[in-house]
Amino acid sequence: MTTFKITLAYDGTGFVGWQRQANGISIQALIEHALRELDGRDVTVTGAGRTDAGVHACGQVAAFTIARELGPDAVVRALNAYLPLAIRVITAEAAPAGFHPRFGARAKTYRYRVWNDEVMSPFDRAYAWHVAGPLDVAAMAAAARLLEGRHDFAAFQAAGGSVATTEREVFESVFRPSHPEPGTSPPGLLCYEITGTGFLRHMVRIIVGSLVEIGRGRQPIEWIGDAMAARDRAAAGPTAPPHGLFLVRVDYGGTLAAGS
Amino acid sequence: MTTFKITLAYDGTGFVGWQRQANGISIQALIEHALRELDGRDVTVTGAGRTDAGVHACGQVAAFTIARELGPDAVVRALNAYLPLAIRVITAEAAPAGFHPRFGARAKTYRYRVWNDEVMSPFDRAYAWHVAGPLDVAAMAAAARLLEGRHDFAAFQAAGGSVATTEREVFESVFRPSHPEPGTSPPGLLCYEITGTGFLRHMVRIIVGSLVEIGRGRQPIEWIGDAMAARDRAAAGPTAPPHGLFLVRVDYGGTLAAGS
Repeated sequence: MTTFKITLAYDGTGFVGWQRQANGISIQALIEHALRELDGRDVTVTGAGRTDAGVHACGQVAAFTIARELGPDAVVRALNAYLPLAIRVITAEAAPAGFHPRFGARAKTYRYRVWNDEVMSPFDRAYAWHVAGPLDVAAMAAAARLLEGRHDFAAFQAAGGSVATTEREVFESVFRPSHPEPGTSPPGLLCYEITGTGFLRHMVRIIVGSLVEIGRGRQPIEWIGDAMAARDRAAAGPTAPPHGLFLVRVDYGGTLAAGS
Repeated sequence: MTTFKITLAYDGTGFVGWQRQANGISIQALIEHALRELDGRDVTVTGAGRTDAGVHACGQVAAFTIARELGPDAVVRALNAYLPLAIRVITAEAAPAGFHPRFGARAKTYRYRVWNDEVMSPFDRAYAWHVAGPLDVAAMAAAARLLEGRHDFAAFQAAGGSVATTEREVFESVFRPSHPEPGTSPPGLLCYEITGTGFLRHMVRIIVGSLVEIGRGRQPIEWIGDAMAARDRAAAGPTAPPHGLFLVRVDYGGTLAAGS
């Protein structure tokens, strides 16, 4: 029996999200289907982040244990042969038995893409939120920084959440034009990137929805701090749509040891 | 009656190409449908480049004449309201009566995207050709340069072509990694860009298919010149698939005057 850690990229369009569900096709179910083909038995896969319906990933991490003796490269090739092109295994490596991609994660990074131009790009229509009209990017960048540190993020949690604590540590929270170098990306593409210990349900999307309120001049920069202090979902902005969101990285510190 | 010049972007996935056809939905037919909604009568649209099925555009140019009095911004908004999100009008401007986007064009630029990595990106699967295995990018870049100048490109024309002359002038032919600055684009993305007076059917795709033969080490750099000299389709490489190709720009010189 070998436990593998894999990194995954997927286009979340049309899927019900990472987690297995009765009402549609999930990323998890398709990977488990591929693993059944590969290992000839039912295999459970665990993911680092339970991305919602329509949310994408370029660096999701998952783990499973198989009986068949295969090297990491063969695992990548075999899984990709059984998976649709919307889901790709990028790398695989042997992991210690008991490695848990979610509990073992030290930090996760999400990226949210905003297309700020009068006309939406047809090529980004499934990968960015179209926000027309002027945005004060400097104000959004300043507001994003106010979220860094250890805070109670209850205001940025989908209604009905029931986690033990809504306190999370955000290491970095940056809003800026996608690529500052001229000519390297479309002029209207803006990016929000946030790295933290963990995220509440819809947290990144509610943060982005709130930043856009500030960018549109409907709220001052400080309002995002007031929303946080209120610890009330109603105090924050609307939830940005799922298709602009990407899980880009999961960090495990220096070692893959279980629980590290 | 006002003649408008518009620039268009479209995701060619699933369309039969620019030109109206009996066997599927074309970009031209959808724009003419939108123009009929806008103008209350049948309006013909002419495009600068007749892109094939599956080929994309970020800078196609088209023209039409409408009876309704509308400013350029209103034309952009109205057409986009009637078009699917896969097709977007980016800009519109009044043009001299008789302006012809194809005959008036001084140069066109096409881009072809190659994804050279073991695993294909799910986000580029409709917008780049997946070529796995090592490629000699320097050899491909050197071969690309050999196509610059005025040449007979008969070898790079789809079989069955029947144009008056197969001589064309290529101003620039460049193959390189997508963005040389580190961190600004995926490491495996390569780009071919070609600017010329005009293009034969499948010309860019046959050139790219030939460059990949050289990149794979199956042919030496000089072979592309030999293929050109042979003026025979059989002497060149295979035709690269359509979904990596983009019409990026059409140039009309300093003026929009008809026939300039």
